[in-house]
Amino acid sequence: MIRPMSDVEARALIEAGRIGHLGCVADGTPYVVPVCYLLSDDAIYVHSLGGRKIRALRQDPRACLQVEEIEDDYIWRSAIAFGRFEEITDDADRRWALRRLLARFPQLTPVESVPVHDGQSSVVVFRIHIEKVTGVCEA
Amino acid sequence: MIRPMSDVEARALIEAGRIGHLGCVADGTPYVVPVCYLLSDDAIYVHSLGGRKIRALRQDPRACLQVEEIEDDYIWRSAIAFGRFEEITDDADRRWALRRLLARFPQLTPVESVPVHDGQSSVVVFRIHIEKVTGVCEA
Repeated sequence: MIRPMSDVEARALIEAGRIGHLGCVADGTPYVVPVCYLLSDDAIYVHSLGGRKIRALRQDPRACLQVEEIEDDYIWRSAIAFGRFEEITDDADRRWALRRLLARFPQLTPVESVPVHDGQSSVVVFRIHIEKVTGVCEA
Repeated sequence: MIRPMSDVEARALIEAGRIGHLGCVADGTPYVVPVCYLLSDDAIYVHSLGGRKIRALRQDPRACLQVEEIEDDYIWRSAIAFGRFEEITDDADRRWALRRLLARFPQLTPVESVPVHDGQSSVVVFRIHIEKVTGVCEA
């Protein structure tokens, strides 16, 4: 039976996940990419090279992150967080976020934590401030 | 090394896949859901119960389907098809699409193939006409 998840359940699913699908709107067109992320307080943290999603999010900050956990065709859960993109440019915040992301994803390129404004780093660190979470599951 | 995929590679990845992440724009906000799909000719076929994505796609037909294949953190491929939603309401087309979808996904609820306009079926069958395909991979 498919049923809606409570906010608490949906949030817990996102909190436990590591890879999600980020949705944004690029020039009016939906765009989806897989990302490694972490949830902390009411925000989802991601680090990324520049590219289409970053250009899109700078232009239109509305974003979502969909996360699923599939046991089999009949036992699965999917949650989605909706929110707004904010690029993290403050040095201390950026270092804090990068440290936490790299602790969770040590296999990722160990991007330098140099200040973003010195022009040496092409890595963008951003958060999505969560405004709403929903989810559905079948079990 | 991360590199762009050719159109042919990206399309082959989508053709081989079974589950993708459908992106659409719901009331101006990006929305992402996992879907079972099949690619045939220049369209992606999906069947679904009604709900938010269907309401969104009826309002704004721009859609994308992102598909990935991950071997490990360093060997992965991700492709995305951009296109336009079209609901399939013609009885013969609908039966054809449902037959193919159920042949590919026999585990899915065996939704009836009754005509959509007789009010008995809550299952929506739709295609996304592909306009463009891109992809990136790391290997």
